[in-house]
Amino acid sequence: MSLVVVGSVAFDSIETPDGFVKDALGGSAVHFSLAAALFGQVQLVGVIGEDFPEDRHQLLRDRGVCTEGLEVIPGGETFRWSGKYFDDMDQRETLSCDLNVFEQFKPNVPAAYRDTDFLFLGNGAPVTQSSVLSQMSASPFTMVDTMNFWIDQDRSELIALLSQVDALVLNDEEAYLLSGEKNLVRAGRWIRKLGPRYVIAKKGQHGATIFHEDGETALPALPLADVVDPTGAGDSFAGGLLGSLQRSRRTDLDAIKVAVAWGTITASFCCGGYGVEGILSANQSSLRERFDHYRKMLDLGTVEIPLASL
Amino acid sequence: MSLVVVGSVAFDSIETPDGFVKDALGGSAVHFSLAAALFGQVQLVGVIGEDFPEDRHQLLRDRGVCTEGLEVIPGGETFRWSGKYFDDMDQRETLSCDLNVFEQFKPNVPAAYRDTDFLFLGNGAPVTQSSVLSQMSASPFTMVDTMNFWIDQDRSELIALLSQVDALVLNDEEAYLLSGEKNLVRAGRWIRKLGPRYVIAKKGQHGATIFHEDGETALPALPLADVVDPTGAGDSFAGGLLGSLQRSRRTDLDAIKVAVAWGTITASFCCGGYGVEGILSANQSSLRERFDHYRKMLDLGTVEIPLASL
Repeated sequence: MSLVVVGSVAFDSIETPDGFVKDALGGSAVHFSLAAALFGQVQLVGVIGEDFPEDRHQLLRDRGVCTEGLEVIPGGETFRWSGKYFDDMDQRETLSCDLNVFEQFKPNVPAAYRDTDFLFLGNGAPVTQSSVLSQMSASPFTMVDTMNFWIDQDRSELIALLSQVDALVLNDEEAYLLSGEKNLVRAGRWIRKLGPRYVIAKKGQHGATIFHEDGETALPALPLADVVDPTGAGDSFAGGLLGSLQRSRRTDLDAIKVAVAWGTITASFCCGGYGVEGILSANQSSLRERFDHYRKMLDLGTVEIPLASL
Repeated sequence: MSLVVVGSVAFDSIETPDGFVKDALGGSAVHFSLAAALFGQVQLVGVIGEDFPEDRHQLLRDRGVCTEGLEVIPGGETFRWSGKYFDDMDQRETLSCDLNVFEQFKPNVPAAYRDTDFLFLGNGAPVTQSSVLSQMSASPFTMVDTMNFWIDQDRSELIALLSQVDALVLNDEEAYLLSGEKNLVRAGRWIRKLGPRYVIAKKGQHGATIFHEDGETALPALPLADVVDPTGAGDSFAGGLLGSLQRSRRTDLDAIKVAVAWGTITASFCCGGYGVEGILSANQSSLRERFDHYRKMLDLGTVEIPLASL
């Protein structure tokens, strides 16, 4: 089994009520890769400038991320983003966004990646995401992410893309925007009709809802007392999801549900540190322990409650 | 086992984006009682005016609600509330609130109720809620509800009450207000220190989180495509919770968790119709079916995912 991610590689400067970090390693493909690498190998397609330090490149490789598809643009600068979180850590404001080499990103999937079994298309222009699909020699299980900007600006290209993918992950607010519905269940059902077999709505601290052929499955997030920095939590969620799905070698609903649970656990680690520090702090035993705790939290046992005869 | 509820009995006029209902049977004690009665007998303490129609009184009795503690004030008028929901059904605005006989409510618990095993103190003035506790001859498992008004206006009385009860249910926003925390886990932990063994934060469509001696347990709501009217959902949740807890004859964490699940299911029926119509539409088989679906939704099975060695 193999897993390819195409997305951004960036330097993030992040301000929270409790601290600040400058030029932290970030971007959708990085957060996804480091999360997925907790489960097995992952192959990254992205673009960086000449300013990208070798030690960070090495960090990715050390964690089991294949960077053969990481293109370096001579003389170019790497994507830079900065943002600020408000008190409740649910809302954030973008302070600056310099796309740099990512603006002209034309993903070129290495030949060795083209028959991958699983593919994640990180947030980006739908036309760019589509260009990746057309380079594939096999038909991978493909999950795509998007955001409000593309829903607003490239709606028809996005809808065309959705007819070709297996799964879509997006925020609840994006689901409302895309569907025009005000109820999440109606929104998810509406979006499923565009093509994806699975639509997964992320609700941050409120967990995620999977829309599938048999209806809806809602799973909570793991309650966290300390959210240091949620940047990358959505991509870490997707990384844990596809990383674990790859290991289960299945794509049926039961497997997706367990994979969403693993995505939830992975995202909880992401929130525990600035940038990728949270994910890097996770290991086999801490991951397994948190997953077991989560599974037990959701276990309603077998107690039968007698009901009244009315 | 026995269960007593003390709270309001009201006429509600409710406007939603899709419809309107005038003078529907409502109030915390009514919603709670009809929900709890799905599980077994419940004894209601409340106050009404002479305008309260006999057929509604009979409806309560027909559903297994003992109304011996429902006091009628001669010449008085029953509590009336009207409100309007916005598009997303998450927010509402109070249009009018005439407390009438509820303003001077001095609960008088019938002698036969005083040794009850379970007690629910519906939203009301903390000093009134405390007056009920002092009438009890036994030490029931007591759950209390409150709202932002009392947290703001009667903070010290509320805190005094909380030191004497077993459980508190409140909205997430109320938990933030009471604790001064911006993170729900911190808020719940802070509130538990005031006394209640269990603090249960209701998050509407996002489910509920239980704060207990071993940490936190988050459970999702049942995804609903059709929310007709959420009025009374919180009290129906509490009614299903304590109604099922009474039937399980337990108050340990495993029992509370299952009871919160039953509360979640009961509340989902409440949302399906105006006023108490939703709850009245539920029966043994529809309740059981929805609960089994919910339990299955949360079952993560036993699939083990191999993790990477890092």
